[in-house]
Amino acid sequence: MLHRIASTELPETKRKLVDAGVKLMRERGYNATTVDDICGEAGLTKGGFFHYFKSKDDIARAALTHFHEGKARDYEAAPFRKLADPLDRVFGRLDYVKESVGPKGRVTKGCLIGVFAQELAFTSPEIRDACHNFFSRIVGDFSHDLAEAKAAHASDAKFDPKAVAELYLAIVQGSLMLAKVADANEVLRDNIEQFRAYLRFLLGVTDK
Amino acid sequence: MLHRIASTELPETKRKLVDAGVKLMRERGYNATTVDDICGEAGLTKGGFFHYFKSKDDIARAALTHFHEGKARDYEAAPFRKLADPLDRVFGRLDYVKESVGPKGRVTKGCLIGVFAQELAFTSPEIRDACHNFFSRIVGDFSHDLAEAKAAHASDAKFDPKAVAELYLAIVQGSLMLAKVADANEVLRDNIEQFRAYLRFLLGVTDK
Repeated sequence: MLHRIASTELPETKRKLVDAGVKLMRERGYNATTVDDICGEAGLTKGGFFHYFKSKDDIARAALTHFHEGKARDYEAAPFRKLADPLDRVFGRLDYVKESVGPKGRVTKGCLIGVFAQELAFTSPEIRDACHNFFSRIVGDFSHDLAEAKAAHASDAKFDPKAVAELYLAIVQGSLMLAKVADANEVLRDNIEQFRAYLRFLLGVTDK
Repeated sequence: MLHRIASTELPETKRKLVDAGVKLMRERGYNATTVDDICGEAGLTKGGFFHYFKSKDDIARAALTHFHEGKARDYEAAPFRKLADPLDRVFGRLDYVKESVGPKGRVTKGCLIGVFAQELAFTSPEIRDACHNFFSRIVGDFSHDLAEAKAAHASDAKFDPKAVAELYLAIVQGSLMLAKVADANEVLRDNIEQFRAYLRFLLGVTDK
């Protein structure tokens, strides 16, 4: 019985710590966040922390993975996935990005992968590689729809789906950064709309 | 005489400290860089440091301004500035960005404004505003050429020069981040080329 209670509670405690790690590191970055800060945010003791994590590095990796997996699940369950025509999925993804940053006037909380990429790329090869891996998955996922849309609707078009997906990722990451310093999401919305215009041009469509 | 020697040496000492601050904070970010690190890198004592700067915050502001001013001077002196046709200046800027990241195989050292924007936007309103100000100047500078190019060559075009300049900045900043995690500049070059294609489309030109 004790075991059953413990095994129910363990993941909950670990989850609280990881959630606190994501929240604080997204706000302050890796280096400005301490294990004490994470314990305080989670309402847990350091003993609890070190039961699950060896170090700040350890929870940072877990937070990054958890953040990526949460976003990947959101995108997997998003309405655009169910659209039969890959062209609709390509443009539906752009609508989804705009919606997911929230209503007008809201400010993004930023992307933990982007924060770690920027702060730790030159000092932590392991985090750099993890960021690269998660970014590559985003590029691969979008490339897939772009390649299908090109094959179905614009087989003469010259663009490389992977390169276009990398441009998309750069625009989203750069725009999130600009939105953070502007304290407003408008730049992200505007840039997505310009990327939409570029895609219309590449794919030769006018009605998306 | 002592005064003359001192006034010659003072700026040199201060410059060494600021250069060290730029180098280390560009590599490691703000929070992972200590005053001791900066003194060590500059080969100077803490006494020397505190003669010129009140705190790490103080040198961080100086480093950010110094970095921005250096880049602004580079862009002011760049070959594209001397071109008479604003269309040539617009596309010449893109060549300059690609050249300035160095020969193939080199990896960017990143942008200090981007590093601070990403790491400190939610925790230091003063640094956030400074980043926003420097980003706005880049957008304003490019907007000026874009507006002139539009007026001279594509007066029927519908685009907003400021919005296009903001897209450019997002692409450069996002691509620098992706280049850092990919450990290669190719993504920056490829994305600039795609931005060039978008500009050709907007301006209705085929030969730039």
